[in-house]
Amino acid sequence: MKILVVLGHPRPGSFNHALAAEVCEALRQGAHEVVFHDLYAEEFPPILTAEEIPHDAALEPLIARHCAELAAAEGIVIVHPNWSGQPPAMLKGWIDRVFRSGVAYRYIEKDGSAWPMGLLKAGAAVVINTSDTPYTVEMEVFGDPLDTIWRKCVLGFAGVHNVHRRSFGPVITSSLEQRQGWLQETAALVGQVFSRR
Amino acid sequence: MKILVVLGHPRPGSFNHALAAEVCEALRQGAHEVVFHDLYAEEFPPILTAEEIPHDAALEPLIARHCAELAAAEGIVIVHPNWSGQPPAMLKGWIDRVFRSGVAYRYIEKDGSAWPMGLLKAGAAVVINTSDTPYTVEMEVFGDPLDTIWRKCVLGFAGVHNVHRRSFGPVITSSLEQRQGWLQETAALVGQVFSRR
Repeated sequence: MKILVVLGHPRPGSFNHALAAEVCEALRQGAHEVVFHDLYAEEFPPILTAEEIPHDAALEPLIARHCAELAAAEGIVIVHPNWSGQPPAMLKGWIDRVFRSGVAYRYIEKDGSAWPMGLLKAGAAVVINTSDTPYTVEMEVFGDPLDTIWRKCVLGFAGVHNVHRRSFGPVITSSLEQRQGWLQETAALVGQVFSRR
Repeated sequence: MKILVVLGHPRPGSFNHALAAEVCEALRQGAHEVVFHDLYAEEFPPILTAEEIPHDAALEPLIARHCAELAAAEGIVIVHPNWSGQPPAMLKGWIDRVFRSGVAYRYIEKDGSAWPMGLLKAGAAVVINTSDTPYTVEMEVFGDPLDTIWRKCVLGFAGVHNVHRRSFGPVITSSLEQRQGWLQETAALVGQVFSRR
């Protein structure tokens, strides 16, 4: 399978980078084709302009390529830290520019009003997040909007309903053993969701 | 009162711009001091780098100024469209860079673990969103993560718990009369939340 892996963390050598590397390695061991983007390292331009919003807007070649990769992906893996219950602006910009009308969704008429229809063919997605807040605090205080964001507003909206998510943390106070366990859990999850053909 | 108003919409002349102008006008009529940022027009640089994350990082003058304005604000108004249940990347970048540790929050020791304490002195905030999805669909399909994002993860986390939010839409199929009504509702809300001293 052709799997798109997108990483949104600013620091090379971060635990997010280790997670993304583990994901890519697990996928390659499963004989999948991996298309990998480290958005910060590639200096992805994250700002959607007014000119680019219309359905038929002319796209920069870079954005057209990202859109084609998203449309062609048979599986999607996203890795990013939880920043204020949301992805970093860098990754949000990738969503803004690449999950376009005509690529990720289009509107269809239903009962006289316009309803979104997801267009992506990816059969499954995995979202891996890291946090420095204990998960119980995350759930109680913040209500974990990231789960809704990815499961419903981004991937579900685009037709990808088989979404698996893990949130690891707090990273800041974690031990090496814990982090090694999280890497193993991630590799196992990816291997299970995207099983060999 | 000193009120910070932040707008995140790419198109000059948009309904979001009209809402922000209405907010500023209502505040000035209430004799408040308005600090206004149209992030797109100002070409705000939205990417938080690894170097800028540490608590004691040296800040670019522009970011230091934004942080000082946020810290000094006695009220906050945010205006933006709902893009995938989140703010546009431009506005997310303002959150990433300006809602910093030491400015918006700091961690304190509580029962042996670190808990966030909000630092902002703003007594109230207003969040105005626009959407092209009917509100019932928004709630049923997407679960409206924007409410959680602003109320809990951004403003609440920073100590601003008195948050008033309106979401207007669908804008795309709205009539002039509806939009005029939404502008009036916005002015009334802002006038009521930030009443004359």
